[in-house]
Formats: sequence, C-alpha cells, structure tokens
Amino acid sequence: MTNTSFSGETIVALATPAGSGAIAVIRLSGPDAISIVNTVFKGKDLSVQASHTIHFGTIRDGNAIIDEVLVSLFIAPRSYTKENVVEISTHGSPYIIESLIRLLIRQGARAARPGEFTLRAFLNGGMDLSQAEAVADLIASNSKAAHDIAMQQMRGGFSNELRQLREHLIHFASLIELELDFSEEDVEFANRDQLRTLILRINHTVKHLIQSFEQGNALKNGVPVVIAGKPNVGKSTLLNALLNEERAIVSEIAGTTRDTIEDEISINGIVFRFIDTAGIRNTEDIIEAKGVERTLEKMKQASLIIYLFDPDQTMEDIDLQLNGASDLHIPIIGVMNKSDLIVPGKQVELSGQELEFISAKDKEGIERLKETILSKVNLHGISTDSVLVSNIRHVEALQRTQEALDKVVYGIDHPVSSDFLAMDIKQALHYLGEITGTVTTDDLLDNIFSKFCIGK
Amino acid sequence: MTNTSFSGETIVALATPAGSGAIAVIRLSGPDAISIVNTVFKGKDLSVQASHTIHFGTIRDGNAIIDEVLVSLFIAPRSYTKENVVEISTHGSPYIIESLIRLLIRQGARAARPGEFTLRAFLNGGMDLSQAEAVADLIASNSKAAHDIAMQQMRGGFSNELRQLREHLIHFASLIELELDFSEEDVEFANRDQLRTLILRINHTVKHLIQSFEQGNALKNGVPVVIAGKPNVGKSTLLNALLNEERAIVSEIAGTTRDTIEDEISINGIVFRFIDTAGIRNTEDIIEAKGVERTLEKMKQASLIIYLFDPDQTMEDIDLQLNGASDLHIPIIGVMNKSDLIVPGKQVELSGQELEFISAKDKEGIERLKETILSKVNLHGISTDSVLVSNIRHVEALQRTQEALDKVVYGIDHPVSSDFLAMDIKQALHYLGEITGTVTTDDLLDNIFSKFCIGK
Repeated sequence: MTNTSFSGETIVALATPAGSGAIAVIRLSGPDAISIVNTVFKGKDLSVQASHTIHFGTIRDGNAIIDEVLVSLFIAPRSYTKENVVEISTHGSPYIIESLIRLLIRQGARAARPGEFTLRAFLNGGMDLSQAEAVADLIASNSKAAHDIAMQQMRGGFSNELRQLREHLIHFASLIELELDFSEEDVEFANRDQLRTLILRINHTVKHLIQSFEQGNALKNGVPVVIAGKPNVGKSTLLNALLNEERAIVSEIAGTTRDTIEDEISINGIVFRFIDTAGIRNTEDIIEAKGVERTLEKMKQASLIIYLFDPDQTMEDIDLQLNGASDLHIPIIGVMNKSDLIVPGKQVELSGQELEFISAKDKEGIERLKETILSKVNLHGISTDSVLVSNIRHVEALQRTQEALDKVVYGIDHPVSSDFLAMDIKQALHYLGEITGTVTTDDLLDNIFSKFCIGK
Repeated sequence: MTNTSFSGETIVALATPAGSGAIAVIRLSGPDAISIVNTVFKGKDLSVQASHTIHFGTIRDGNAIIDEVLVSLFIAPRSYTKENVVEISTHGSPYIIESLIRLLIRQGARAARPGEFTLRAFLNGGMDLSQAEAVADLIASNSKAAHDIAMQQMRGGFSNELRQLREHLIHFASLIELELDFSEEDVEFANRDQLRTLILRINHTVKHLIQSFEQGNALKNGVPVVIAGKPNVGKSTLLNALLNEERAIVSEIAGTTRDTIEDEISINGIVFRFIDTAGIRNTEDIIEAKGVERTLEKMKQASLIIYLFDPDQTMEDIDLQLNGASDLHIPIIGVMNKSDLIVPGKQVELSGQELEFISAKDKEGIERLKETILSKVNLHGISTDSVLVSNIRHVEALQRTQEALDKVVYGIDHPVSSDFLAMDIKQALHYLGEITGTVTTDDLLDNIFSKFCIGK
C-alpha cells in the first residue's frame, strides 16, 4: 500500500491515557492498518474511503458487537507516521479497549512498543530526532515555559539552527576533501582565514546553545529554589503561602487538574521546584561551622536562594548568614518575615543588602515577593523565537562538537595536514548530526524511544 | 446554525481520561462549536468544510502556539449530540488540555456538566433514556457479561421490547378514550376479553423483565459469592488460586490493564464478586449457634456459596454445616480442600451431598471448580438477543407498571367505569414511558446524568 514504511508490520496501541473516560482512541499504523480494521468493521468499506475522513460503524468479533465506533482514516503519507494510520474512537471502557486490541492483534496487528509511532515518524522522515524528542517533552510539560520550549523544538526551531551550522561546515568539509584529491599539488581550496572565522562563529553559537541549557533545563524541569533560614522563621508557612494561590488556579477546571507536586509552584508559567532543606531544619545554629556546611551543600543545587529572617535576629546575625550564602554566587533574596511583629522603635537594621518585608502568615507581600523571584532568575522572555537547549543528550553532543571545533581551530593555527583538519570537521559534523538524527545508532534510538509512553 | 439544539450554548470538555497520554480529545457541542474553534485554529477555514472530515493545523492563543492538532468536524445532525460537534485531538499534556479548554471558554464555550453531551443526545432525539443510561454502563463495564448487557441496552434492545408493549397499550387506551366520548351511549369499543388477554400478556413480559433483574444485576455488578468454611480450611488460598490465573490474563496487554479489585474474578466473561467473610474467620466453631447466625447473615447476600472443608472434618460435622447453609435456598458447592492429604484408608465419607475435590495450594481441580461455579449460577447464555434488566431505576418503574396493570385487570374483572380503566392504563403507560424517557422530569434527568463523567 505504501512504500514509505520501513517495516511490513502494522502496530496497534491505546493512544489515550488508561482508565475510564467518555472516549478512548486506539491507533494503528502500518501498511495493513486499513485492511485489518476493515475485516472487523461493519459500516462502509474503509478501503475505498478518502484520507482524513471519519466513518461510523460497529466493530464486531464474529457476531458479537464490541462497540459502536468512529473510525478516522489517514492514508500514507498524510499521517503522523507517514504510513497508513487508523484511529478508532471507542467508548472509554477498559473492557472494550482490551477486547478491541486483542481482536486487532488476532487480525494481524502487533502491539506497539513504547514510542514506536514517533520512531516511525522519524524513520519515515516525518520529523528529525530532536523534534521526536520534543513530542515526549511536550506531553510531559506542566508549565507554560516547559511547553513553549518543547513546542519550539517540536516545530523545528532548534533543528533549523543546527541545520544552518551544519550546512556551513559541510561546505568547508567538501572544499578540504577536494584539497585531499589534489594533495600532490599543494593547493588550498578552503581559505584558512575564512574557515577560522566560520569555525569561531559556529563555536560561538554552539557555546551560546550550551549556555542556554542551564536556563532551558530550569524552565523544563523547574527552577530549583532553596528557602533557607533558621528554624521557626516561617519557611514552611512561606512555602504554603506561595502554594495556596497556585492550587486555586490549577483546580479551576474540573477534570483537567494535573497531579500537583507538593513543593512545586508556577509563577507566570515558570515552575519553581523547592529543594527540601529538612535536613538542616533542626540544626540549632546554622552559622555554626557544620550547620553552614550542610546548608551550603543544599544551596549549591539551587538557582535561587530565598533567605528568610525574622525580627528577632540581629543585624550582625543576618549579615553573617547572607555573607556565607553569597560565596555561592547564586542569586539571593533576603526576606524579613513576620513583618507584622515589627513595631516602631524596634526597626530591623539593614546591612547593605536590601530585604523584602512579608508576613507569610497573613499572606502580606507574597505577590511582591513573586515578582522579585521572577526578576532574580533573570529568564529573558521565553517565546517561540528564542532557541533554548533543554535536553541533556543535546548539550552533551554540543559539548563534543565544541571540542572538535576547537581542534579544527588549533589545526589551522598550528598547520596540520588537510586530512587531519577534514577528520576534525567530520567529527564536529557527526556530533551535530547526532542531535537531529542525521547520524544515529540503534542503541541511541532504543534509548530515546524506550522512554516514550506506549501509543505515542 | 442548527435548530435541533435545545439550547444556544456550546459546551466543551475533555473527553478522554485525565492524565498524560499520547493524545487527548477535547470535545465541543453546540451551534457555535465550529465557529468558536475556527477563531483559534490556524489551517483551513473550518466553516466551509464537510462533515466527518479531519483537518490538521495549530491552535493559537494570540501568537502563542498551544498545540499542533487534528480537528474532526461533525455537522448537525450527523453527530452524537445531533448538534454541531468538534473534536480536537491534541498531544496528551495536562498543560495543553487546560490551556486549550481555557482558551475555548474565553472564545464563548461553556464547561460541560457531567453527562451533558449524552443529555443533549437524549433531548435532541439521538437516543432514548435507557440507551443514554447504557452509555454510562458500557463505559463502566469490566466484564464481557456487563459489556454485553450494556451494549444490547444501548443499541435499543430493551427499548424495543418496551415500545412494543406501549404500542399495544396505547391502542387500547385510545379505544377506551373513545368510549368516554360516547359515554352516554354505553358502547364498548375496547373488547374487555381482548384487553384482559393483552394485559395479562404484557404483565407476563413485565414480570419476566423484573425477574431478569437479579440476573442482570449480578452480571453487571458481579455475582456475589461467599466462600464459607471453618478457619484454616484454605479459604484465602482458594481465592488466591482463583485470582492468580485471572491476573495473568489481565496484565497481558501493557497499557490496558484495568484496576483489578482484590476479590473479583472473571470466569468466562462473568465477574464473581467475593463477599468478605473476615468477620467470621476467627470464630472458633461456626456450628456454635452464634457463629452460624453470623455466617448465615453473610451468606444471605450471596448468589452462590462455596463451602470449603478439609479432610480433618468428620462426615457428621460436614453434614451439619451443609444442612445449616441449605436452609438459605442459595446454590451451594461443597468443596473438599487439601485433597493431597487424603491418604488411602482415611477416605472422607460423603453425606449424600456430592463434594468436589481440590488442592488450592497445588492449584489442583481449580479449573473443574470454575466450571461448577459457572453451571451453578445458572446463567442462561448471555447474548445481544436476550433482554436483561440491570438498572434499579428500570426495575422500579416496571414494578409500578405491574401494579397499574394489576389494577386494570381488577377493573375488568370487577366492572368499573371506563374512566377508571383509562386512568390505570395511563398510569401503566406513564411508568413504562419513564424508562425510555417518553415521560421525564428535570429531577429524573438530573439524577441520571449527574452520575456521568464530564466529557460524556
């Protein structure tokens, strides 16, 4: 039926979440998707219908009706996988789903492996590897920022950036290959100055992409935040005050409530993930050497520290704590809690460092604190235009690319033969290609797609 | 756009189960379903597309892309609700689902109430009330038997049976109404003998339907079974032996595994629900008066008793237990466990009652026991042909119908005036009509549809 399929097998899986619901969608992909469904579908003859049409009928196992269904047809290559795809929309009963999948397997389909639909989309040229990975990220995204990064990557923003870099490199690689063919004549087709300039330019972009990972990763997985401070200054109360407002928003639309993790809050679409500092809560005095050490260890994992004080602490004390933390070179917000207890005449003395005043208990100053949190993490506006790397695999490939590019520059500056130059450029091309899947291995693909859910 | 809509409002809800998955389906229904989606869909102009077609594009909130989606169009009255329906197939991310529903609500849709899509299908004549109720039963069904009953009801089997009864009654009701018009002339248009015969025939069918409820309910909710017996005869081991094999089947297809309840097993598609006899497990001697009483109380809830013995018990003892239980008039299967311990010369003596021999530990005789269980519950073959009542609301309406019909027969046998007869027939028609929804009240509809999930 189609010759774009990389395999003769037709796969089937539940594509919607497991559990009871109004409807469930069972998806098939492969050359026999339509003919397999046709053998059990009573309604129109599906084999003569147009692509992107929907047909009502019943699915029968012999005489027994399994369900009344809607069948959607996507004829190759006009489908997600570029193969023939059939989506069967059934009543969302686990019994029906199980019966139907069993029946389709009896008719010749095979149960799909995790991510196999997207793997086929990649292998059949429907998307490159970084786009395929973005599909999983998109499904997992639980904040606007994570969603926007995944969406931009899925729509090819990141791939485009890499493709341009590769094209420039390929141009020079071919010139240098040409030099190898004429090696006896000692000619230089590839202008070394131009090549050097290009490599430095590419390296600059690669470096920029690598640097964006910290931000991309924080946006994708949540910005790690530590709320530090002595016992009883109100750390938990502050966390609850921040969480409370978030919860109200999340539960607004019944049925779509996502699983909220106790210590994650979303501010303006960016998730902040609070690192448990329980280990240091019972330390009597955190400026005591050992206490500081353990606190600092925890703080090192954070992108932001909210350092909480109360009016009982002296200026000297506050200074000591802030100074200890400032050695980490992580943004710090100093916050004075229990501001309702500050009576005139007992003003807190500031030590150069500006303090925010809140009352976590009365939820005073929380909104202003949120704005400060946002401004401190210094996330430049996330839009579908800016390219951020959020995948550890990509950043590793970029780092290897950078190493290879550094060798190329070294080769130009300390003249080596053209074949060494060519090898290093090829190495850089290889690593760039790994990201988009121009270069792949079975292990790499296995590793990526086995983490997908079944049905995707 | 359509005048079949009972309300001008367009509703929206997630139709697939909550949680992450490959895809999710968001459904809209109402006159503005297509135009609302069209305002945020970038792709083809949806307002000029044919029904039952699918369109790829992006959903945008301003410039921000929420997702790449497939939009399916169902133009009134060719849809589930008989209104314009749009189904948006998105990536199954809770964040995307929430953003999309919020956006559609901002564009003029309203969040659907539980069961509102099916309520509209009913109000717009797409299905009658018993069919609408069957949709919920179908989604909840977790066994072949429950599924088949719901499917038959959804496809109108039950409704057809009732419709025929009603038509006959309506015919006579109109004849009697005619007599009322000519009441001064004392004519009888409705032959009393024929009417009596008809009523008895209808009453026979109604009685049969009422009687089918016990079976229908058992098949829908599981056949209640008690495993009785003294402590340590192996009741839990037997339950586990029965459960084990079932579990292996259920978990065969990854991703479709249903939530299994510890004490339910399915044999040949029929669910058997085991009643907890924990309360009597620690009773030292259940033939002691108080022990027997409590056991019997539990057993009364069962449709089947599996009475378990072990070779240590005497014939007299076994006899006593079986006789005590037989007073309940519930089918009993006497089972001798630990048959591996029965050595020649220490044969168990049977007391007229036939015993099955098993070894729950070694899983010997379990298959044979399952066959006995099936034969004892005496469920005549379930097929989509046989009509079984499985809904308590229906059986109550049928009981009231029967009472009204009895009054009609009494009225014929003890001559009353035609208007009394007419009133009783109307009463019977009323109750029959309640089942299919020919007669409804807002309370009744609220009560039925509020139990549906949102999105159905």
